[in-house]
Amino acid sequence: MIEQQIMPALGVNDAGHLTLGGCDTVALAEQFGTPCYVMDEATIVANCRAFQTALTATYGDNYTVAYASKALSCKEIYRIMAREGMGIDVVSGSELYTALSAGFPADRVYFHGNNKTDEELAQGLDAGIRRFVIDNIPELLRLEALCQQRGQRIEAAVRIKPGIDAHTHEFVQTGQIDSKFGVALDNDEALQFFRRASALECVAVVGLHCHIGSQIFDPEPFAVAVEKLMGFCRQLNDELGTAITELNVGGGYGIRYIDSHDPRGLDEVAAATADAVKRYAAQLGLPLPHLVFEPGRSIVGNAGLTLYRVGSVKTIPDVRTYVAVDGGMADNPRFALYEAVYHAMLPQRPTAAASQTVTIAGRCCESGDLVARDIKLPPVEAGEPLAVLATGAYNYSMASHYNRLPKPPIVLVSGGVPRVIVRRESYQDVCVCDV
Amino acid sequence: MIEQQIMPALGVNDAGHLTLGGCDTVALAEQFGTPCYVMDEATIVANCRAFQTALTATYGDNYTVAYASKALSCKEIYRIMAREGMGIDVVSGSELYTALSAGFPADRVYFHGNNKTDEELAQGLDAGIRRFVIDNIPELLRLEALCQQRGQRIEAAVRIKPGIDAHTHEFVQTGQIDSKFGVALDNDEALQFFRRASALECVAVVGLHCHIGSQIFDPEPFAVAVEKLMGFCRQLNDELGTAITELNVGGGYGIRYIDSHDPRGLDEVAAATADAVKRYAAQLGLPLPHLVFEPGRSIVGNAGLTLYRVGSVKTIPDVRTYVAVDGGMADNPRFALYEAVYHAMLPQRPTAAASQTVTIAGRCCESGDLVARDIKLPPVEAGEPLAVLATGAYNYSMASHYNRLPKPPIVLVSGGVPRVIVRRESYQDVCVCDV
Repeated sequence: MIEQQIMPALGVNDAGHLTLGGCDTVALAEQFGTPCYVMDEATIVANCRAFQTALTATYGDNYTVAYASKALSCKEIYRIMAREGMGIDVVSGSELYTALSAGFPADRVYFHGNNKTDEELAQGLDAGIRRFVIDNIPELLRLEALCQQRGQRIEAAVRIKPGIDAHTHEFVQTGQIDSKFGVALDNDEALQFFRRASALECVAVVGLHCHIGSQIFDPEPFAVAVEKLMGFCRQLNDELGTAITELNVGGGYGIRYIDSHDPRGLDEVAAATADAVKRYAAQLGLPLPHLVFEPGRSIVGNAGLTLYRVGSVKTIPDVRTYVAVDGGMADNPRFALYEAVYHAMLPQRPTAAASQTVTIAGRCCESGDLVARDIKLPPVEAGEPLAVLATGAYNYSMASHYNRLPKPPIVLVSGGVPRVIVRRESYQDVCVCDV
Repeated sequence: MIEQQIMPALGVNDAGHLTLGGCDTVALAEQFGTPCYVMDEATIVANCRAFQTALTATYGDNYTVAYASKALSCKEIYRIMAREGMGIDVVSGSELYTALSAGFPADRVYFHGNNKTDEELAQGLDAGIRRFVIDNIPELLRLEALCQQRGQRIEAAVRIKPGIDAHTHEFVQTGQIDSKFGVALDNDEALQFFRRASALECVAVVGLHCHIGSQIFDPEPFAVAVEKLMGFCRQLNDELGTAITELNVGGGYGIRYIDSHDPRGLDEVAAATADAVKRYAAQLGLPLPHLVFEPGRSIVGNAGLTLYRVGSVKTIPDVRTYVAVDGGMADNPRFALYEAVYHAMLPQRPTAAASQTVTIAGRCCESGDLVARDIKLPPVEAGEPLAVLATGAYNYSMASHYNRLPKPPIVLVSGGVPRVIVRRESYQDVCVCDV
């Protein structure tokens, strides 16, 4: 089945139904209701190990793969990451709270964000997280002040704008510095940051971090980022005597949402990036840094699908066929936000010929509430389930209550057994804060 | 203060601070924390009465103004609407549940949606709502079947695509039928709907509904919609002997988000629409229908603002100044979705000269997370509060937990007294469904 290139855990059972992780998706829709997110645990684990195996082979054990949990944050995902020896990155006190309350070890947590509050900095210090990734000089100074108050000494990293903007197959080295994130290399902001940092008592900035884009399919932009960051390490060492011991190349590893997407393997991208670090370290006479990767989408994206039930099928002659489902932009706002593309299937007939072009419409009262436009499906019947593939990342995590719709549950399938890891919200849940 | 044209309840107190409904917004930010939605009750009430007064004067009492609660749905807003003699429109079982649990009378509820589930149809029938606005023939037949099972007879309305697409000052009569909503006039779908409906036993379709756009500033498109719908009433009467007794012209009434927006008064638009109904009824020899308006944004939009606190102020020389606030696309996704425009103010210095062009960035880990781009503000200091105006509609209702951010509270101010009508979410609330 061609769709296994999108989600490797898909299959077809004896009943001719679509399966995920050995579970019949028609039965899942019946048992857990719709809409429903379904995630395959083995795929998540395999994605973690793809990074780890490639890095151990090329770089030894001096690395951390930190799952970027903004892609999907819930207690169970942190338990899986803990078990797999992963680090995590969090971007809010709330993500940190969730991770810690699931038992995730604080000393494997990276805390990001362009505007962390004092409360969040204190929360991270209290927990003893591994690393703050500082965004700017005012934050550096706030963190220093907090550490002084507490008599605490910490190491930290800083977010660098390396001047690379990468998406899918394209990337440009614009020296682009118009971003809310980080300090730029090209206008000496980054050097000024380290001049300021070198005078501090409590916060030692020992790490560089960058994030160069999203849905990147090729290793090359990462190698260019490494070249820039390693060059800056050399400069820092020469000009300020500062030693950088940790290099964090961030995330952005692309996944296949539709057939025409063709990302290189995670192992290949990771190994190529590690090779680039070794190469530039040798060229520049620098020791090998602790190397950090922060994949999010590429860990959970292809593990998940969303099960809907079809309501009406509305064919407007000579115009378009709308297949309305019982979810939409509230559980998956990515079409509304980015016109993101998805592949869909009919769980009752996964191998039937996709002979019809349809647009999948959500149920929200908003004309932009579509899930996928002009995609191929077999003829669809009202009442049957419909699966949208590769929704494991940035669906639950971006879900809203628009139209006051309760959020769907997340069902984790593992070895043919489903279990609820986030339960469905009730109408009462949605009202819980109302006075 | 020029900003009173955006939000009439704004003012400046003796301390020189921005006030809303007589409450000091600097003090509100301190007392309730940030981010925080603040709504002025008197503005909401005045907006309701603007419609009601104009309609009573031009059309007598044969009308309903039904608040489109997808703009802002919470228990207290339904209590205000009940008190003001308003109807409401809901678009989900969850909105209906919230309204009923706040004591809103079911017989003033209009239930919309392009894909209502059987459960929602049953919920509306159980509650005895005033009106389903049916989207399509399959829904009509599902509703008929449910009514037959229950031995219930109801009247209903149908959503018509009148072939008008209106926004701000522009509108086009395209005969546009490429929409997921409703049945079109232009290709006879609507007539087919009524042919089918006329044979049913339990559901009598007596109402026409249309929704022609968003942020409409002028009365003219509504008059054109009325002309089309009244013409269709005449046709239905002539061809099928069907009498339409209710005409629902929907919503879409624009508000002023920024100084250059200049919508006509709600009273003027409502009166002009009612006049058009009277004119075409006379021309076509039709009795005056019960007239329904469904304003959402224009009831709550200009009543609300969002209070943030400024984190970092990042000036990139010759490029841009980013003012980072402690919220963003999670509490207001409208810039990310539509590049929506907003006006911002500094509550500590509301009348200071806006001498600086800045971009307000949110705190989410996403480069598109901006609140407003290239707007004028006085020089901004880290740590001070910042108010974004006219966020009363489609902010709380579209809010997500992206980056797992808890949702802000809604504080209602009334005669100088603030009270929480939706409490702030805690980290624990965000995890409540996690297993």
